[in-house]
Amino acid sequence: MTQEISIQLTTEPRTRPDSEKLGFGKYFTDHMFMMDYTLEQGWHNPRIVPYAPLQMDPASMVFHYGQAVFEGLKAYQTSTGELLLFRPDKNMKRLNRSNERLGIPEVSGDFVIEAIRTLINIDRAWVPTAPGTSLYIRPFIIATEACLGVRESHTYQLIVILSPVGAYYSGGLAPVKINVESSYTRAVQGGIGHAKAAGNYAASIKAQSNAKKGGYSQVLWLDALEKKYIEEVGSMNIFFKIGGKVITPAINGSILEGVTRASVLELLGSWNIPVEERKISIEEIFEANAKGELEEVFGTGTAAVISPVGELYWNDRQVLINNGQIGPYSQKLYDTLTGIQTGRLPDPLKWTMPV
Amino acid sequence: MTQEISIQLTTEPRTRPDSEKLGFGKYFTDHMFMMDYTLEQGWHNPRIVPYAPLQMDPASMVFHYGQAVFEGLKAYQTSTGELLLFRPDKNMKRLNRSNERLGIPEVSGDFVIEAIRTLINIDRAWVPTAPGTSLYIRPFIIATEACLGVRESHTYQLIVILSPVGAYYSGGLAPVKINVESSYTRAVQGGIGHAKAAGNYAASIKAQSNAKKGGYSQVLWLDALEKKYIEEVGSMNIFFKIGGKVITPAINGSILEGVTRASVLELLGSWNIPVEERKISIEEIFEANAKGELEEVFGTGTAAVISPVGELYWNDRQVLINNGQIGPYSQKLYDTLTGIQTGRLPDPLKWTMPV
Repeated sequence: MTQEISIQLTTEPRTRPDSEKLGFGKYFTDHMFMMDYTLEQGWHNPRIVPYAPLQMDPASMVFHYGQAVFEGLKAYQTSTGELLLFRPDKNMKRLNRSNERLGIPEVSGDFVIEAIRTLINIDRAWVPTAPGTSLYIRPFIIATEACLGVRESHTYQLIVILSPVGAYYSGGLAPVKINVESSYTRAVQGGIGHAKAAGNYAASIKAQSNAKKGGYSQVLWLDALEKKYIEEVGSMNIFFKIGGKVITPAINGSILEGVTRASVLELLGSWNIPVEERKISIEEIFEANAKGELEEVFGTGTAAVISPVGELYWNDRQVLINNGQIGPYSQKLYDTLTGIQTGRLPDPLKWTMPV
Repeated sequence: MTQEISIQLTTEPRTRPDSEKLGFGKYFTDHMFMMDYTLEQGWHNPRIVPYAPLQMDPASMVFHYGQAVFEGLKAYQTSTGELLLFRPDKNMKRLNRSNERLGIPEVSGDFVIEAIRTLINIDRAWVPTAPGTSLYIRPFIIATEACLGVRESHTYQLIVILSPVGAYYSGGLAPVKINVESSYTRAVQGGIGHAKAAGNYAASIKAQSNAKKGGYSQVLWLDALEKKYIEEVGSMNIFFKIGGKVITPAINGSILEGVTRASVLELLGSWNIPVEERKISIEEIFEANAKGELEEVFGTGTAAVISPVGELYWNDRQVLINNGQIGPYSQKLYDTLTGIQTGRLPDPLKWTMPV
């Protein structure tokens, strides 16, 4: 796809937020990228325009039947002022896997990456520079046809918005308290859990909200069939260090294939640390803890990179992990990943791409 | 809730479609109802305005995390020109059950019904009058907060749009071919399958599309856990008449509680026909057919009312039901329900409500 991206610059640039107050996904830059899909023209009319409300017919299918997928990735500023994307090709491949599952037409990943780079260069002044901050990139695709028949839409929009975001942990890497969810289900085999689809998040909100009310920061999801095997945590993948080995649930059709998850597996492999991708039950975690073998637990995701877990609650049982302190693997993975992402460390596997 | 509904009438009424060409959910009337929700004000600013595009921030949560629910009901014109709603109270109760599951604030069902009646009276000229036509009413709620944090939105809009719709079967009640879906899953216990949530439909689109390509009109969904028990068909509930008894899958947390389903159960009960709400396996259907006891199969839903099933395909097995003809129960239920809905028959159970 070699379409030219038309560019219309804003005449009313907005005030950029204080970098102390960024938070996550609350502020958006001056421009956005858009591209349309019709059956006749395929993906067409790629354009960068001022960030502004979308004009959506109330019958647009996305509002009714949830045909919507998204991605999330970040651009980091290096100490020399260069901007780096982290493995955007993997996000694009996943976007097309999500598209395939939701019946949305495939996009050219290379073209969307090019669009993202062009957009970031236009809004470059919005990239925050304080330690731990970054520019969060949110490509998403929505069904726009105005029709109430239940079927795939015949028109779509792909949109990319940019949000300067703060350090995920304002006070450094802080281990979190997690509640193992025993009632609600996030996803099941044959469903859409492996796709980054809007509906998965809708299904997770109630349990997440209950967990927050109970003083937990996240939910640990178990499999839908037996409520026995671990799936993922909140919107992150999860890893356990048990007796020197690192274990993470295998990709099974209901777990999201995280880019950070894949990167952690590759890093651990390169460090010759034994890794297992397999089914792992919540019971096994509690048993490992009872034997004194549960050494570390951490989540992985684009937003937090590495999120150490300090406490796990499952009905009336609980475990304290590594005395509620961040473990050495979690710390090393965090330092290595953020080091590569921000250009502080060498990038032997060519994971970063200059904007 | 006794808020007054403000009314702004269109200055550009649109051409109404030819009643022959209505189809389903393709045309919309001149006005729509809207109401906003904020944490501070709750549901407020109820208003009827000209049908027009919504102004949606690209970061609106509905696009990203699918927090969206809807309802579907119909208004029918009687031979005396009166308009009747069918059991709108049940739609409002379900809307609030959906809201509860998705973390969306409760609405006053009575107030939304009042809003629907006011809206229909304004767009009364759009109600089609040809046999089998009706006015489809689509209330829906979407998360409108512009924020990428994964949590419940703090702002919402409830919108009601109206669509004149044609007879579901242009050539009369025609039995359909159904494919039993063996790979994809619609919903699972603990998920959102019992809610009328956008994400459920997103999950169903791929299988539905494959079925259409294979020459089937709908998908029959099996349970997620064992791929053994029958759940629902397409976006309808399903009933089987076996050896004189009528059987439908019991409400189990992953099946939508259809208003037509409930009405069919009540009608059959009032006719002293034995009815069972229970687990029913697909194997049982094929066994009943082998014994010559599978007498009728039909789906129930607002769009089609009663949809007779003529053929069922399950991997390499198939059954022809009642020689592919509509059965006497299906026909009687269809005649009775549409008779009550359109005022042709008495309404002893007070299911209809004048607009």
